[in-house]
Amino acid sequence: MTEVKQLAQEAKTASQALGLSTTSEKNEALQAMAREVINREKDILAANDKDVAAGKQKGLSDYLLDRLRLSPERLQSMSKGLQALMELPDPLAVEPETWTRQDGLVIENRRVPLGVIAMVYEARPNVTVDAAGLCLKAGNAALLRGSSSAVHSNEALVGAMKAGLKARGLPETLVQLVNPENRDTVRELGQMRGLVDVIIPRGGAGLIQTVLEQSSVPVIETGIGNCHVYIEASAKKEMAISIAVDAKTDRPSVCNAAETILVDEQWATANGSALIEALLAEGVAIRGDENIQRLHDDVKQASEEDWATEYLAPVVALGTVPDTEAAIAHVRQFGTTHSEAIVTENEDKARAFQNQIDASSIYHNASTRFTDGAEFGFGAEIGISTQKLHARGPLGLGALTTNKYVISGHGHVKGGTAQ
Amino acid sequence: MTEVKQLAQEAKTASQALGLSTTSEKNEALQAMAREVINREKDILAANDKDVAAGKQKGLSDYLLDRLRLSPERLQSMSKGLQALMELPDPLAVEPETWTRQDGLVIENRRVPLGVIAMVYEARPNVTVDAAGLCLKAGNAALLRGSSSAVHSNEALVGAMKAGLKARGLPETLVQLVNPENRDTVRELGQMRGLVDVIIPRGGAGLIQTVLEQSSVPVIETGIGNCHVYIEASAKKEMAISIAVDAKTDRPSVCNAAETILVDEQWATANGSALIEALLAEGVAIRGDENIQRLHDDVKQASEEDWATEYLAPVVALGTVPDTEAAIAHVRQFGTTHSEAIVTENEDKARAFQNQIDASSIYHNASTRFTDGAEFGFGAEIGISTQKLHARGPLGLGALTTNKYVISGHGHVKGGTAQ
Repeated sequence: MTEVKQLAQEAKTASQALGLSTTSEKNEALQAMAREVINREKDILAANDKDVAAGKQKGLSDYLLDRLRLSPERLQSMSKGLQALMELPDPLAVEPETWTRQDGLVIENRRVPLGVIAMVYEARPNVTVDAAGLCLKAGNAALLRGSSSAVHSNEALVGAMKAGLKARGLPETLVQLVNPENRDTVRELGQMRGLVDVIIPRGGAGLIQTVLEQSSVPVIETGIGNCHVYIEASAKKEMAISIAVDAKTDRPSVCNAAETILVDEQWATANGSALIEALLAEGVAIRGDENIQRLHDDVKQASEEDWATEYLAPVVALGTVPDTEAAIAHVRQFGTTHSEAIVTENEDKARAFQNQIDASSIYHNASTRFTDGAEFGFGAEIGISTQKLHARGPLGLGALTTNKYVISGHGHVKGGTAQ
Repeated sequence: MTEVKQLAQEAKTASQALGLSTTSEKNEALQAMAREVINREKDILAANDKDVAAGKQKGLSDYLLDRLRLSPERLQSMSKGLQALMELPDPLAVEPETWTRQDGLVIENRRVPLGVIAMVYEARPNVTVDAAGLCLKAGNAALLRGSSSAVHSNEALVGAMKAGLKARGLPETLVQLVNPENRDTVRELGQMRGLVDVIIPRGGAGLIQTVLEQSSVPVIETGIGNCHVYIEASAKKEMAISIAVDAKTDRPSVCNAAETILVDEQWATANGSALIEALLAEGVAIRGDENIQRLHDDVKQASEEDWATEYLAPVVALGTVPDTEAAIAHVRQFGTTHSEAIVTENEDKARAFQNQIDASSIYHNASTRFTDGAEFGFGAEIGISTQKLHARGPLGLGALTTNKYVISGHGHVKGGTAQ
């Protein structure tokens, strides 16, 4: 048995035990895990220093180093995240739908944990704690396959969480760290159908594609967002500019940030310059089509590729469309079914856009930036699904569960022969 | 563009149009499809004759030929199946969950179709009509990849359904037949992420494994059932025998039939011979462990492989266990998370079995044969899922839908800067 298979087998056994735990047992474990993350602050920060030093030597960008770096404040925030999960309702503690057939057979559709959840992610140590906590609260074991750049930080964090689990009498094997040095472990995890119940990749398009290609285990695709804001002819000038600027600039590096702004041709003639000035004032580089280029000297020409690009940076593609049909067609062609917005005072156009676009979250007169578990009121999220199977949009605790039918009879048989 | 990609693209475009259709438009199309299947009886039966003749020449077994063969009665039954779908509630016509944030942003979680559903199946022409009808009722387009053994029958049936769609003004491309002569089309379908929303394989373990290995498109695994009936010490003799015989013999070739019967050691000593006699009387061949072999001369020795085998035939593995824990451990080791049953008068043992076993459907004092969409009251089913992602157990129309968030604001932005 390989090392990863061993870890998965242990996680499965642990998940079977956890499936029978009560809500308060799970909450007490979260509390203990939160405490250990703080108790071990010194060790965790020392481990993180090693990762940051190695990252500098490898020439990681400042942006990546910032994501990797831990601090007492960031540990506090992780610890509070675990405690916040205690307050959320237990997704398994929902009244099952139950019905009785005419012959007296009782069928109950019960919520149960998924079982073993594998997370494959990049050099963000906070995902280690977030994911483990969410999985635990929903009754699952977590197999964590982070980045080799964060290996020392992750070992220290997982060690703290294991100590918390142990302190509350739960199996430490509920949270398992998979060796990130071996690239083949991602493929291995993907082949463990029956042992691993789902793989959730969190990271860039390359990571997600690799997981999709290598897995027969079901995958939940998360997070690629080539999001659009479409400003329709009747849109109010101030509202449209405000939403477009917010969607692009509030936090350009995240998946729900806008990458393309589509503007009605007439609206562009009247208000396009103001929109461009507002974006430039926030430091956004603009790639525009001909109509947009005509409006301002600082607009570079957009290539076909720009419409398909998720910049995750202060760059935007700005295009014009003759009508809502053209906007819908553009979004259908280039969108990644994440988050799309229309700004309009025309209810019919809003309805057409929201009905005809196929995406996880479709906004009318609001910024795409709200696609988020906390914003939607789910309290926490394990990612934002852009696929249709299982669940779409921000995934809360409920998405980490499945169903099972529990049927009770008194000797019921299907054929006519017996009893 | 390959032929399959072309078909998928057309199906996607058609599904976008269908997503906006009303329930009655869809029902009228089902009605017209049902009518055309009957109108074209002569042509369909002639096409089927070709397939059956070719099948005989290829040496298909009588069993497979029977599954392949159509008759006026079977066409009537298919046509009635389409009409029955008209009576079922539209899975998209459910009141969406809607909530309003304190800042006035309204979030609606709406049911929407999956989009394009690919079915990969074997030489059963009835799946062609069933699947197309179910997909349509839930607002989806169907890509049907049947067996080359049924190609003429499937062409004739799809032709009839396309005529029905056309008669009601819906795109014929909602039902697309994929050329089964080219084996590579299964792999091709599996790589069309973004175009095909889900692949549902229906057939033997080999087919399902092939689809799983070749697909980055999400797959719903259906139907492999190594199902168990566990007779606990306190089980009533007559009830236990009746359930075990029904689960094994009511229809041995289907996935919810029992393949292994586990018997409490003490119960076996008292009643094992009667159970064996009852199974033998129904023509079941028995492979038993030592305890069982001791009870009857006609019991052959079970090998380790027998515990893992889905016979789909009148053969059963019969083993003894000392207690419920051992039964649970056995089912965990060899079960395929399809359907499992315990027969007992002890409520605690029943609860332990139902809580601790992870399967789509877990029975107390009832036969495993009830795992079925019609029996569960869903009206119809597209398969029985044995995976945890998306849905488990019999998949009704609801499982052919997903969700989408529709959010309405009045200029809502996330950052503090704007408006």
